[in-house]
Amino acid sequence: MNIKDLLRDAYLLQLKDGFFTVKSLSKLIKRSYSRTFSILKELQRKNYVKSLEKRNKGETRYIVDEKGRRRFKVILTAGTYDIIHTGHLKTLEEAKRRGDVLIVIVARDKTVEKIKGRRPIIPENQRRTIVQSLKPVDFAILGSEKDFLEPIEKINPDLIVLGRDQPVNKRKLEKELRKRGLECKVVRLRVWDSSPLAKTSKIIKKINETFHISNI
Amino acid sequence: MNIKDLLRDAYLLQLKDGFFTVKSLSKLIKRSYSRTFSILKELQRKNYVKSLEKRNKGETRYIVDEKGRRRFKVILTAGTYDIIHTGHLKTLEEAKRRGDVLIVIVARDKTVEKIKGRRPIIPENQRRTIVQSLKPVDFAILGSEKDFLEPIEKINPDLIVLGRDQPVNKRKLEKELRKRGLECKVVRLRVWDSSPLAKTSKIIKKINETFHISNI
Repeated sequence: MNIKDLLRDAYLLQLKDGFFTVKSLSKLIKRSYSRTFSILKELQRKNYVKSLEKRNKGETRYIVDEKGRRRFKVILTAGTYDIIHTGHLKTLEEAKRRGDVLIVIVARDKTVEKIKGRRPIIPENQRRTIVQSLKPVDFAILGSEKDFLEPIEKINPDLIVLGRDQPVNKRKLEKELRKRGLECKVVRLRVWDSSPLAKTSKIIKKINETFHISNI
Repeated sequence: MNIKDLLRDAYLLQLKDGFFTVKSLSKLIKRSYSRTFSILKELQRKNYVKSLEKRNKGETRYIVDEKGRRRFKVILTAGTYDIIHTGHLKTLEEAKRRGDVLIVIVARDKTVEKIKGRRPIIPENQRRTIVQSLKPVDFAILGSEKDFLEPIEKINPDLIVLGRDQPVNKRKLEKELRKRGLECKVVRLRVWDSSPLAKTSKIIKKINETFHISNI
């Protein structure tokens, strides 16, 4: 296993649990405890990971250090993902291809209401659960209701990916990021799904047509 | 890595490609080519896998043999999965927990039309793509339009899992399976998702309420 894959796997555990241990990493990379222990010692020697101060008698907790973090690429994207369709999936798969870890910020109900004038059909927690369950997605979190840059600042991604039709001004976003000292790039994807029902608005239209007529 | 995990990984490649090679298995299990080669030779010696007749100068193709197939448990479930929601996800996750490999049969548009009197909102290929993209699902295939038992016969699963509300008669299904010489068990899951919009009918109702009123 190469160092990049190891560090990425360790980082995925850290996203979920806040840290990783020999045990949790050993389970994820399917290597023995002793093998994982010696791998981890080597990564620590190279300053790729560091141990956290022991707070109790439990296992030593580790996190990926700044030098280790620079060995893999974290991609960030965001959206409402109200009714999941192949258009979403295609964008997420393409976003994942741009790097090693894909983190998705799922818009809060209140934020969508502010922008679109109505809440999404599916509540935020269920939307987050579905996005988290998609194979290209490593980690899905809910956005902030107050400051949309807050989770981006915390994650400090290498690249932010915007969907083809995402109503976000790329330049304005870059300006905002620079103000906070974030150096990450922003790209807008060109991929799209030409399948007949790969847009939420089309799905909603078809549902209305189908059930409006048949229910009267 | 234990034998069960190895055989399951090899079987997943076989589902996708019809066979596996040293190269494709090596990539999946993240071991070197030579390490994978010696693992494979050992599995072959134990009659867990067998090589297929060489048709060209390419790499030797292998498949999991009957003895190897008995070392892991294949779960099968089926459904329409028209608009994916957390209720589907919960059922699929619970189904996956019952075994090692989860294969999902996605109902054909025509079959749904015959049963429900209308086609699904989302076309069959897009429904299959979304189901395949969910983490608990190892492999998703479209059903047969003529004989619903045909793909089950081909897969020969260890267990068939029915969702809580799935309109299938368990005893009748078991009878049909026995007629074809299939010994697999059938269980109906009791799990369900109490979240507010974890049912397709509820999502459709909410969409109609939301847009019917606001569009007039």
